[in-house]
Amino acid sequence: MYDEIINEPQWHEECGIFGIWSKTASVTDVCYLGLFALQHRGQESAGIAVTDGMHVDIAKGMGLMTEAFRPRLPGITGHCAVGHVRYSTVGGSVLANVQPFLASFSGGFISLAHNGSLTNAQETRRRLENAGCIFQSSSDSESILNLIAVSQAPTVEEKILSSLEQIEGAYSLVIMTGDRLTGVRDPHAFRPLCLGRLEDGYVLASETCALDAVNATFVRDVLPGEMVVVDRTGVHSYFLQKKARRSSCVFEYIYFARPDSVIDGVSVWQSRYLMGRRLAREYPAAADVVVPVPDTGIAAAIGFSAESGLPFVEGLIKNRYVGRTFILPDQTKRKATVEMKLNPVQANLAGKRVVLIDDSIVRGTTSARLIALLRRAGATEVHMCVSSPPITHPCYYGIDTSIRRELIAAVSTEEEICRKIGTDGLHYLSLQGLLESVGDGMGERMCTSCFRGDYPTDVSECLAEAGI
Amino acid sequence: MYDEIINEPQWHEECGIFGIWSKTASVTDVCYLGLFALQHRGQESAGIAVTDGMHVDIAKGMGLMTEAFRPRLPGITGHCAVGHVRYSTVGGSVLANVQPFLASFSGGFISLAHNGSLTNAQETRRRLENAGCIFQSSSDSESILNLIAVSQAPTVEEKILSSLEQIEGAYSLVIMTGDRLTGVRDPHAFRPLCLGRLEDGYVLASETCALDAVNATFVRDVLPGEMVVVDRTGVHSYFLQKKARRSSCVFEYIYFARPDSVIDGVSVWQSRYLMGRRLAREYPAAADVVVPVPDTGIAAAIGFSAESGLPFVEGLIKNRYVGRTFILPDQTKRKATVEMKLNPVQANLAGKRVVLIDDSIVRGTTSARLIALLRRAGATEVHMCVSSPPITHPCYYGIDTSIRRELIAAVSTEEEICRKIGTDGLHYLSLQGLLESVGDGMGERMCTSCFRGDYPTDVSECLAEAGI
Amino acid sequence: MYDEIINEPQWHEECGIFGIWSKTASVTDVCYLGLFALQHRGQESAGIAVTDGMHVDIAKGMGLMTEAFRPRLPGITGHCAVGHVRYSTVGGSVLANVQPFLASFSGGFISLAHNGSLTNAQETRRRLENAGCIFQSSSDSESILNLIAVSQAPTVEEKILSSLEQIEGAYSLVIMTGDRLTGVRDPHAFRPLCLGRLEDGYVLASETCALDAVNATFVRDVLPGEMVVVDRTGVHSYFLQKKARRSSCVFEYIYFARPDSVIDGVSVWQSRYLMGRRLAREYPAAADVVVPVPDTGIAAAIGFSAESGLPFVEGLIKNRYVGRTFILPDQTKRKATVEMKLNPVQANLAGKRVVLIDDSIVRGTTSARLIALLRRAGATEVHMCVSSPPITHPCYYGIDTSIRRELIAAVSTEEEICRKIGTDGLHYLSLQGLLESVGDGMGERMCTSCFRGDYPTDVSECLAEAGI
Amino acid sequence: MYDEIINEPQWHEECGIFGIWSKTASVTDVCYLGLFALQHRGQESAGIAVTDGMHVDIAKGMGLMTEAFRPRLPGITGHCAVGHVRYSTVGGSVLANVQPFLASFSGGFISLAHNGSLTNAQETRRRLENAGCIFQSSSDSESILNLIAVSQAPTVEEKILSSLEQIEGAYSLVIMTGDRLTGVRDPHAFRPLCLGRLEDGYVLASETCALDAVNATFVRDVLPGEMVVVDRTGVHSYFLQKKARRSSCVFEYIYFARPDSVIDGVSVWQSRYLMGRRLAREYPAAADVVVPVPDTGIAAAIGFSAESGLPFVEGLIKNRYVGRTFILPDQTKRKATVEMKLNPVQANLAGKRVVLIDDSIVRGTTSARLIALLRRAGATEVHMCVSSPPITHPCYYGIDTSIRRELIAAVSTEEEICRKIGTDGLHYLSLQGLLESVGDGMGERMCTSCFRGDYPTDVSECLAEAGI
Repeated sequence: MYDEIINEPQWHEECGIFGIWSKTASVTDVCYLGLFALQHRGQESAGIAVTDGMHVDIAKGMGLMTEAFRPRLPGITGHCAVGHVRYSTVGGSVLANVQPFLASFSGGFISLAHNGSLTNAQETRRRLENAGCIFQSSSDSESILNLIAVSQAPTVEEKILSSLEQIEGAYSLVIMTGDRLTGVRDPHAFRPLCLGRLEDGYVLASETCALDAVNATFVRDVLPGEMVVVDRTGVHSYFLQKKARRSSCVFEYIYFARPDSVIDGVSVWQSRYLMGRRLAREYPAAADVVVPVPDTGIAAAIGFSAESGLPFVEGLIKNRYVGRTFILPDQTKRKATVEMKLNPVQANLAGKRVVLIDDSIVRGTTSARLIALLRRAGATEVHMCVSSPPITHPCYYGIDTSIRRELIAAVSTEEEICRKIGTDGLHYLSLQGLLESVGDGMGERMCTSCFRGDYPTDVSECLAEAGI
Repeated sequence: MYDEIINEPQWHEECGIFGIWSKTASVTDVCYLGLFALQHRGQESAGIAVTDGMHVDIAKGMGLMTEAFRPRLPGITGHCAVGHVRYSTVGGSVLANVQPFLASFSGGFISLAHNGSLTNAQETRRRLENAGCIFQSSSDSESILNLIAVSQAPTVEEKILSSLEQIEGAYSLVIMTGDRLTGVRDPHAFRPLCLGRLEDGYVLASETCALDAVNATFVRDVLPGEMVVVDRTGVHSYFLQKKARRSSCVFEYIYFARPDSVIDGVSVWQSRYLMGRRLAREYPAAADVVVPVPDTGIAAAIGFSAESGLPFVEGLIKNRYVGRTFILPDQTKRKATVEMKLNPVQANLAGKRVVLIDDSIVRGTTSARLIALLRRAGATEVHMCVSSPPITHPCYYGIDTSIRRELIAAVSTEEEICRKIGTDGLHYLSLQGLLESVGDGMGERMCTSCFRGDYPTDVSECLAEAGI
Repeated sequence: MYDEIINEPQWHEECGIFGIWSKTASVTDVCYLGLFALQHRGQESAGIAVTDGMHVDIAKGMGLMTEAFRPRLPGITGHCAVGHVRYSTVGGSVLANVQPFLASFSGGFISLAHNGSLTNAQETRRRLENAGCIFQSSSDSESILNLIAVSQAPTVEEKILSSLEQIEGAYSLVIMTGDRLTGVRDPHAFRPLCLGRLEDGYVLASETCALDAVNATFVRDVLPGEMVVVDRTGVHSYFLQKKARRSSCVFEYIYFARPDSVIDGVSVWQSRYLMGRRLAREYPAAADVVVPVPDTGIAAAIGFSAESGLPFVEGLIKNRYVGRTFILPDQTKRKATVEMKLNPVQANLAGKRVVLIDDSIVRGTTSARLIALLRRAGATEVHMCVSSPPITHPCYYGIDTSIRRELIAAVSTEEEICRKIGTDGLHYLSLQGLLESVGDGMGERMCTSCFRGDYPTDVSECLAEAGI
Repeated sequence: MYDEIINEPQWHEECGIFGIWSKTASVTDVCYLGLFALQHRGQESAGIAVTDGMHVDIAKGMGLMTEAFRPRLPGITGHCAVGHVRYSTVGGSVLANVQPFLASFSGGFISLAHNGSLTNAQETRRRLENAGCIFQSSSDSESILNLIAVSQAPTVEEKILSSLEQIEGAYSLVIMTGDRLTGVRDPHAFRPLCLGRLEDGYVLASETCALDAVNATFVRDVLPGEMVVVDRTGVHSYFLQKKARRSSCVFEYIYFARPDSVIDGVSVWQSRYLMGRRLAREYPAAADVVVPVPDTGIAAAIGFSAESGLPFVEGLIKNRYVGRTFILPDQTKRKATVEMKLNPVQANLAGKRVVLIDDSIVRGTTSARLIALLRRAGATEVHMCVSSPPITHPCYYGIDTSIRRELIAAVSTEEEICRKIGTDGLHYLSLQGLLESVGDGMGERMCTSCFRGDYPTDVSECLAEAGI
């Protein structure tokens, strides 16, 4: 759903993280490969820090990994590394915000990569600044470093644990200290993190597709509130004292994660497929073809087709070369953007009643354009089926979403939305349907605050910032 | 099918071409957009030449269009332009080979972009050199410029026509001379070329997807042996005296062209879909799922599924960030390439009998790796269905294919191929099946020389060069 | 004396700094111009931070300013800025060490650029780390930021002053906090810093040539131990309590500073000229011509010529295109480096007895090559006259010099040096002569520790680090 | 005198050329080094072509050599190479104009680099176009390639000779054909070319400083109208039938060439020195100091000082980092340019009567600025002494000069010039004085057409083009 050209505010995952510890091998390249498999989680910057236990080297840059590391990869031969890809930052000194952060403190050096967003970030930062800490970025992740540094706890592990007790919100972390690799998942387990085994070491990654990319064997997902530490003696597990109801982000299944990943035991592809089946049961459209908005809508559309018996066809072809660096010449910018990115297959649309499957609607602008595109290609009817419920509340757990008044579902009735996007029919997957589609009963333990506003942590600071 | 990482010789289309003539508007940006829609036809270099009738400006560069034009686009405000994207060249002075070519001659200036390959290139070049011509590239397209320049014919149109009578092989051309845009297709119509109308002008393009990208209305395909000239007075049509049986390249339908294009009246997507249906009839596999090799295998897999009733699923997910500039760190190069580019969806494969749909097999190396990947993900059987007959002969009409001894089908029996790629079953689409799948009787008028060696022009020069 | 090709350890000034405060104008461009005039003080990286009182923007990069700011200059329209150019850093994460540093703390934001080197850097850093501070660079300048942040003093000015009382060594600083520009020079006044006036504001710069570059009027040099603060109400002066004997770096006059600069009231060009005159009196060579090693030897050679009556000629011509980015092809690297950079003017050398004037000898390798070059061009005798005394001790005040055993004068007698560099005569300027050449009695107040080891601050930490 | 910032039209030498032939060694690197020593002759583009007798590789690019070859140097191991650096080109497709040109023709391949400018370029080009030749650049050098290609002469040497008989104007050429290196100098010997010997081969270069850079021994200058051919059997000499009076460009001595070069037996540095001495005799100024405009004015200023007894001092210091890529921020562009590039040494100017030595005055704008700069620094009188006569006529032999009405000396009296540039006294070196300063009687055989309009070839075509 990353879409820079159409330039509609989209939901952006903040980051992908990867960590590796190996008894014997040089890990920079493997870290690169693993991180590369997570590129879909962040295209605005990338960084890798590597250590051999004695020295640390770090390389960071803006853009896709191929650009960010064009000048250099970390140059040392090390056995432990952490990496990070991230979506965009506003503000000037952007490079300062690129992760992993690397710092020295009384306990040696520490490098940290963070996926998620804290809900008591400002209060934490203010408290630290008053205690004499300086901040060299605008990132809330830097607070975690400072908390660890000022901690009086005797060991690095205890410093980390005691720091995490003071923060709230979403955080999956990979941390490299001295000779150890540490992974943490917050007590709500908002963002994913899994553990894999190499022949002579371990990896931590946001998604299993990164384990596949480095030929690691999946061991298990990190548990809510768990801290795993990898060192020469093996993998050790610790737990935060703070407990919480699990509320993992359901949008990982809807469209963030790669369909080939398995998160907390549930196949992303299968979840999407089941959402599509459920959609078809909830909205038995009288139509001729089922067309996905590629790429995230494909699995749901296959499911819809399987359930409804309507043929699945490709109705919109994506230009694979549209990317970050595509800069449209000025005068044609407005006119041609959708046509540059997605082009209809007339043979599959002309004279057809179409069910269009997309994963979500944020502002509605893109949907309106796509539906118009289908009609110009000859579709006689277009029914829009969305594999998620209406998004009515902003996310404060690591997704860069619109503010509330930009969310079409927060300010419009379904009828108004139908009119605005020009569809003949519109159906959002029911919340019940969504939760039942995420297999193994996991659905029950998902964060649904963007649909219901039932934030599992105190978000008053975030609301205040948004002027609410 | 562009695949740099896996680094197996693939079939590469040589080029995409685009021309535009407008009564009123500045066309550089529109030319850029049109060419961008043809990026899949060539990723190694790009160029655009623009004129306002008085001045000409040209910009060329290596790499994808976003890189090639990063330093600059042509700077003048012109009403006529030609553009070119192309696949790779061997040899040192690569930039010299980037098209369009731009030259001045006794008739003014001429800029030319060529898709295809001449089969009497060497003889033509030798003849011209003996007449005192110099060549500043190793491209056979430069011969056409020289032929036009030495022509004694009175008008530019006649110079072009008389030059084309002297060359043989495949050529779709867009040519810009002074105030005119010219498009030509060789008498066999090997490579595609179509004409579209703008509000105040015309465009010529390799595929209709480029017409869509600039909001042009499709007018018609350029006919075999036809030269169309666009100028202030409209579109004029001329024909070469040389006649030939139409033998258009069938691989445009199999995988070169974008599925949303319509070539010579036939939808590419539909053709692939029908190939899939036909495959299913020819090879009624006892299997559980149909899995495409993305992206070119998708339409055929949908067709196979529709005909066979077996469910269509995504079994291999492509990492969309693998591209030209992806440079794998050295030591991991061999191990991880396939895993970086395609990753299996275990949920759709484990315990399943899989029909894998790909468009062709060249050397067989990629197929072997993909099949192994599916098996590691738990597939119990893999049946490989290929939507084209065995490729046994090299192409001399604009596709950079392997030499004969590298073509697995030229040197191995089907049984040997089965063994080499490790499949439980293998079926190539029959030639008859292929030709019938390309709609509207067009199949009968296709070039099939890569399957049968029945080259429609004299290729003795090409054979000699290959040492045959 | 910057010399990357010949690759001999040279004495490298660590930095140039520039600050600007204007009532009305946007200052980014003026800061760029001022800093550009200080490029000779550091070619490895550059940075500029700008504020409008509300927002801060910073741009940093590696290389010469033209490269470092190629991606961008700070984008905001601000009335206050600080900038920094610096020589090289060892270690991996070099960008993290590029100045200015920018941080937020309890008092708002602070940006700081530092010229010099602290002699209690490690002790200070350890103390801060133990207090819970983190360090994101290996630079000792970051300690100053942390000291200011942890200070309990009520105002920012007092925080800065109290922090500086805790550090020792060389520091000229420009600091930007909120709406104010602050400049500081350590009590020994090791490194230069001067104040200039614009129509509507003030600038601070390492050298007066930067004042000239922005059309600022010289006001005065910042005094030893003085802190000047520029804000809306004018220029305010404060003094550190710590007092010290002035010991400004004499090498600014010998070769660091630009000859058109005036430092602490003394013209750099005139000082060099007088060193040359004194050299001629101390070593009345029987010779035919005086030849400078360009560019730093020129003024001294003119002085030598004036005093001795021997004609001044150009005997070595510098290739002005040899620079940072010049990468010599491998196999020729050893052979041709000196010839690439300096080429003899045979007409001025053949058959002549030559006095060669250079500013210093560090390891002697370059001198040996130059003398051989002169001889090959026909010089019958070469007498080497050096406008500084023998360097026998490392500098710990901001110059990146060789360790002691690499200093030829520390380990060899003059006779041995003569033999090693192949000269017919060698004369170092006497220390007395040097100090008398730096006009206005300033010579008496210079740091001479590199000649005598009489370090004006406690350097035991530095000696320990060097294993002494 | 290259001056992009001040942006006054200057006299620009078109090119530097270099050729190398070696029995044994790989020559790419040596060619790079040789060409690098000629960088002052052209900073806008560079190219090198290399052959091993079988294959040719060429690399070209825009900008200084370090930029132009950043992507790549020719990749093959060859024993023969030609290289070219050149000043600017107008027009869009600039890369097409970058030399060396490389082409194949009936005689094999040919690569050519040209210094100079033809005076019958248009007529030659028109003639060739009418014969059917195409031109892919706007360079007159491409005509030479075409002439060679259409020549009916039996050998390559004779083809070249017969082609050169048809062109007029200035040309020093290095040509690489098959296994041979050829060097040519036109019958007037307008532009320099010299021959040097390596241990196992030969080099050709525009100036001897390039011989020095590759440790080649000077053999001799190529003679007027001579063609030297280097091959396996040694050096062979041929002569054009066309004879002419030698009229070598005197501006090579005034400022084009590097002062360490020796051209046609005459030291450039010595010539400038003698011009300075002569200037002092012609204009015995009552002054206190002699100040050169660096770098070209230095030798003349030393000469002036020696003759007049007035002390030579540095009064203007050049910022060595001002270069091609220096882009001044917009608003400060006008104000600060001269101050960025040259800064006065106040100590040498305040209260002094100054003789300022420059090599030439083109439009007078720079002179006016420099003189104002000196006065602001306290100079009480400024006398401008120019080491060349007034330039009153454009050059058509390879220097990109102003058109006539921009030449201040063509349209103003000396008195008017004095007033315009604000000097207290102005003296141009007399033509007689100039010619006598270029040693060995060579002065008599110089081209003086820019002073007198006595063009040694027919320039009616050039005059027509300029609308005269």
